Amino acid sequence: MIFIGERINTGFKDIKQAVTDKDPAPLKAWATRQADAGASFLDVNLGAVSADPADMCWMIETVQQAVETPICIDTNKPKILAEAVKACRPGMLINSTTAADEKLDVMMPIAAEHGASIIGLVMDEAGTPKSADKRVENAGKILAKAMELGMEPDRVFLDPIVMPLKYMQEQATHILEATSQFGLFSDPPPHVVCGLSNISNGTTHKRLINRIFLTMAIARGMDAAICDVLDKALVNAARAAELVANREIYADAFVRK
Amino acid sequence: MIFIGERINTGFKDIKQAVTDKDPAPLKAWATRQADAGASFLDVNLGAVSADPADMCWMIETVQQAVETPICIDTNKPKILAEAVKACRPGMLINSTTAADEKLDVMMPIAAEHGASIIGLVMDEAGTPKSADKRVENAGKILAKAMELGMEPDRVFLDPIVMPLKYMQEQATHILEATSQFGLFSDPPPHVVCGLSNISNGTTHKRLINRIFLTMAIARGMDAAICDVLDKALVNAARAAELVANREIYADAFVRK
Repeated sequence: MIFIGERINTGFKDIKQAVTDKDPAPLKAWATRQADAGASFLDVNLGAVSADPADMCWMIETVQQAVETPICIDTNKPKILAEAVKACRPGMLINSTTAADEKLDVMMPIAAEHGASIIGLVMDEAGTPKSADKRVENAGKILAKAMELGMEPDRVFLDPIVMPLKYMQEQATHILEATSQFGLFSDPPPHVVCGLSNISNGTTHKRLINRIFLTMAIARGMDAAICDVLDKALVNAARAAELVANREIYADAFVRK
Repeated sequence: MIFIGERINTGFKDIKQAVTDKDPAPLKAWATRQADAGASFLDVNLGAVSADPADMCWMIETVQQAVETPICIDTNKPKILAEAVKACRPGMLINSTTAADEKLDVMMPIAAEHGASIIGLVMDEAGTPKSADKRVENAGKILAKAMELGMEPDRVFLDPIVMPLKYMQEQATHILEATSQFGLFSDPPPHVVCGLSNISNGTTHKRLINRIFLTMAIARGMDAAICDVLDKALVNAARAAELVANREIYADAFVRK
């Protein structure tokens, strides 16, 4: 399972304050904690705190001083991305492009040029599709663009776009169906990822719903998630699911204590 | 979710003793406990304690004195089954037939005649298939036999036969694939069930593996399980999975406290 630690994001108050104050300690602490918990990438998100690429680069460099874990550059601003990719060590992930031409034609060449992997949200000019079919169509467009630029399919992380179960319950079925179909695109297949917390938005049992949705998504082929890697029950559920899916070899000591 | 309570089985020492002594209290206590926990059926299994149909009928009648929950008659002996179906109130489930002619030609007519539903294990004369395809072929044979006898497909509970993850890890993938395909047989589809505890046989984290496997199986279409309905984490996982699968309507209070 590819866990992408969600915590270095100015949506969290402590990170927002740290970025404002240029205090490296909270970023380094969260970097270390998430890396120790098994994160394969650390998402870094400057959010609306600043539009200055230098601030994003400061975040990335601070995290890289603490851990070896590759960065997941989380921005929708091409100017910030262009500088951020230069600040990252090799092996970074870009979060994200969409299937809309104006995004895809800008973001994907940056990924290709800098040897990055990239998350492709299956939305387009019309927004987020309601159906599985349209999600698959948009995913195909993203993947085709990557391959056209010489990228291997496993450098693409397709994101079917998870919707809140409480408000759009029927969407989960379409998301899981799309996830299954993403696995058929290529060999090796692209990765399939989601921003997990959205599924439990507004619910009373967030952690339970997060881990059950992720388990069901793993059953349909998902192999990555942007999530709270400190949630042991979530990580253990995903590890058990990977044993059932025969993607990891069974060992009695597969859980995190 | 159709939970079939597994506990009234002489494989458990207290039930074996109670049947030997004809002490109704333990059977009634387990019947009540499992019914309160939400069991849709109560499995009743005489095992090797006796070959006398009267003993099975005593077990069934004892359970029926305690609760209204329908019985799941668990026997592979046609003589015991023939008496047991007469002891049961309407709505019972028979556990089980296989796809082997000698079983199918005996067990299925009893189900048809008595208005029972029936579990169909997808094994045949050659034993339990290793592949998803052969499981599906055997399932089709069982379902065809039921329909030939005038039974609706949703009176058949297909069981893909769960194997221990620790010893036959690659089987889980085939079992989940077969489960998906069972749903395509008919409209309404047959039910899909499993004897859950077998998946975690010999493992160190049995409950975790049980509930992760069941969650993944629900993601592929399973809607019933013979299991420990007293395991709250299992029941809550299954309930959350049914919300994600859009089979139950979301409500904040979906978990069991």
